[in-house]
Amino acid sequence: MSRLSPTDFAAHGPLRVGLIGFGCVGQGFYDILEQLPNAEVSVARIAVKSPTKARPLPAERFEFNADALVHDPTLDVLVELIDDAEEAFRLVSTALRLGRHVVTANKAMLARNLPALLRLERKHGGTLLYEAAVAGSIPVLRTLDAHFGAEPLLAVRGILNGSSNYVLSCMAEQGSDYATALHEAQALGFAETDPTLDMAAFDPRSKAVLLAAHAFGLLVPPERVLNLGIENVTAADIAFARSQGQKIKVVADVRRHRSGAVSVLVTPQLVAADSPFYTVEREANGVEATAAFGGPQFWRGAGAGGHPTGSAVLADVLALRRGCRYRYAKLRPEAEVRLAQNLELNIYLRHPDEAVVGEALDWLGLPGAALAADAGGPYATGTVPLTTLLAWRDDLRARGIFVARTGEVRKAAQSILLNSAVAAETAA
Amino acid sequence: MSRLSPTDFAAHGPLRVGLIGFGCVGQGFYDILEQLPNAEVSVARIAVKSPTKARPLPAERFEFNADALVHDPTLDVLVELIDDAEEAFRLVSTALRLGRHVVTANKAMLARNLPALLRLERKHGGTLLYEAAVAGSIPVLRTLDAHFGAEPLLAVRGILNGSSNYVLSCMAEQGSDYATALHEAQALGFAETDPTLDMAAFDPRSKAVLLAAHAFGLLVPPERVLNLGIENVTAADIAFARSQGQKIKVVADVRRHRSGAVSVLVTPQLVAADSPFYTVEREANGVEATAAFGGPQFWRGAGAGGHPTGSAVLADVLALRRGCRYRYAKLRPEAEVRLAQNLELNIYLRHPDEAVVGEALDWLGLPGAALAADAGGPYATGTVPLTTLLAWRDDLRARGIFVARTGEVRKAAQSILLNSAVAAETAA
Repeated sequence: MSRLSPTDFAAHGPLRVGLIGFGCVGQGFYDILEQLPNAEVSVARIAVKSPTKARPLPAERFEFNADALVHDPTLDVLVELIDDAEEAFRLVSTALRLGRHVVTANKAMLARNLPALLRLERKHGGTLLYEAAVAGSIPVLRTLDAHFGAEPLLAVRGILNGSSNYVLSCMAEQGSDYATALHEAQALGFAETDPTLDMAAFDPRSKAVLLAAHAFGLLVPPERVLNLGIENVTAADIAFARSQGQKIKVVADVRRHRSGAVSVLVTPQLVAADSPFYTVEREANGVEATAAFGGPQFWRGAGAGGHPTGSAVLADVLALRRGCRYRYAKLRPEAEVRLAQNLELNIYLRHPDEAVVGEALDWLGLPGAALAADAGGPYATGTVPLTTLLAWRDDLRARGIFVARTGEVRKAAQSILLNSAVAAETAA
Repeated sequence: MSRLSPTDFAAHGPLRVGLIGFGCVGQGFYDILEQLPNAEVSVARIAVKSPTKARPLPAERFEFNADALVHDPTLDVLVELIDDAEEAFRLVSTALRLGRHVVTANKAMLARNLPALLRLERKHGGTLLYEAAVAGSIPVLRTLDAHFGAEPLLAVRGILNGSSNYVLSCMAEQGSDYATALHEAQALGFAETDPTLDMAAFDPRSKAVLLAAHAFGLLVPPERVLNLGIENVTAADIAFARSQGQKIKVVADVRRHRSGAVSVLVTPQLVAADSPFYTVEREANGVEATAAFGGPQFWRGAGAGGHPTGSAVLADVLALRRGCRYRYAKLRPEAEVRLAQNLELNIYLRHPDEAVVGEALDWLGLPGAALAADAGGPYATGTVPLTTLLAWRDDLRARGIFVARTGEVRKAAQSILLNSAVAAETAA
């Protein structure tokens, strides 16, 4: 982070916050401030969507027009914590056009609109911080942006979704099936009623996009990033991993290749006991960043929950008060970073029906010899181009096939180069 | 960190650094800059002590009067990386009196002189940063100071000495004895020729003192902090830990008690497989900070080595350029933090001679029933007041007795209150 307009905030007592949204994170943030009267931050106005929903504060604390907060010049900081990504973008971009200071935790909104938001921030002199959008309580964006800003990074990997990690932990620890584990996670508040964003890895994909921007200066549209989820995972997959001494985790993988291009993907992965991710259980998140000189860094902390995430929101609000902003040190107009696509992945896939596994082998161009079977039924292993997985991602999911990575992301051999752009990338 | 005198550094091209000391960390820092021509930092002058020592750069790069650098107004930042704590304090305090910006990694110097250095920093408007002094490559001070500055912390624990951790890993993995493992660590550059500072836990004690200042606002003289080392550890101790499913690690433990007082100690400790420290091996360091709202955070990274530590030095230099300084948010004159001494520790101790173990039981006020024996010979376990261990620390070490903690630090019962100061503390 670096300094910006240090005199923006007059020494007029507590920082006046306009809070938009009062869900889990909003209530967590509010509750922390109630318990920390010395934090020099006060929530002056709260805007929510529904006038009828029951809330834990008196009705007079709430209003229903978020735009009024965006345009209130007496508020020092806007904290946007609503679910709706489109509405969030409308509010945050309007606020940035007014040169305002904004904190958000909306990873889907950020991942889709980061280039536009950065342009607005720079053009109008506002500030946008969003530590809580990635890895909950872990200050990963701040650390990558400031401490490792000058240093080349080789890779950033992470378990970035507490809900799917909770489900996988339950299945491994209790032997429960996917539906039971998901139900438990929902009952405990670690998974949404509609679990698709979390379980199909859309949520960690958004976070991986943000990590790619801060760690490597890559701005990639989320839809270009492979996301494979755990909706089709079964006890047979957990047992297969265990038979190898491994666990299944959903791991985001962002790394720079020798060509300078950066790959981004989020998939289930078999991880061994010597992996830092092996011990990241339940709603925890974990991130490993490998720095060129600092070496591998591993951070673990709560990835969800009102207080842990609210804690990161508060840290951003106070950073704004000190004039901090992200530096995006790796994002340099003179050195555009390309998305690496010319990659091969080692995968494992399984479905109870051998015919379905065989069909998937055809889709992915794997030889019939890749088909195997164990006590859990038919499965296959093999090496597949990333582009092939991207093309068949939705079909694999729809057919109920579970796919996981079993090794490192590797550069593909020249022979499977897909187009001239990729060829140019490889030659670079 | 917060802003300070943002216009101190003119936009005059690369930041001009005066480097004092060219040992492992100094060379690592210099080498990183050689490999990062875009870092906008240049080493303008290098001062070293010995005119005759062979060095990897041409002789004309070196000079031998560090004071000349301290007084050179054309240098933007002084980077102090010498071994000698007294000389380092003389140089750094002189520089701060001149209002200069200083980066150091000298933990012994800092721990002994922190109150004086803070007074000089505040009085003369200079800046002192020292991320590399604690946990090598892990940005723990910056994270505690800035991200967790507003949030109460409950505990900060850590493996803060890569040398002793390397020795313990070797003994556990290879079954080697202490002398052999130490020799290996020395041969690989992970331990000094005189291993006392590392092996007797003086070095991690200095780091614990710095953590106590940033995490809790406690300024404690190092000699008031219990440090027990591993110079007397034997294969019998490693085997005992393994028989419990545990490992022996040297863990610094800084925590706030219900009274508000903070305890600081560094001792060998038996850690179980579910501890984050169980997987911190060899020269790695690991820190766990438990935040009131953010929850437990764990960070692991290289704790030693020229590049990892030099990377932290560079991050400080660039932070200075952006006007950053430590905020010491927990260090508030109106809320003085007391050192908790009224504590009990669960310990394990061993010596090959049963008479020596018996004598130690007398010293520590443990009943004879605490004495036991296994295949590795006589040992004892029991609960001992912290003050008793402080009083007998040197005798235990001199007699060749190995002592480790076996559980959490606990508040002692009223019945063993030692003096009125402690009583007042407990009543608070």
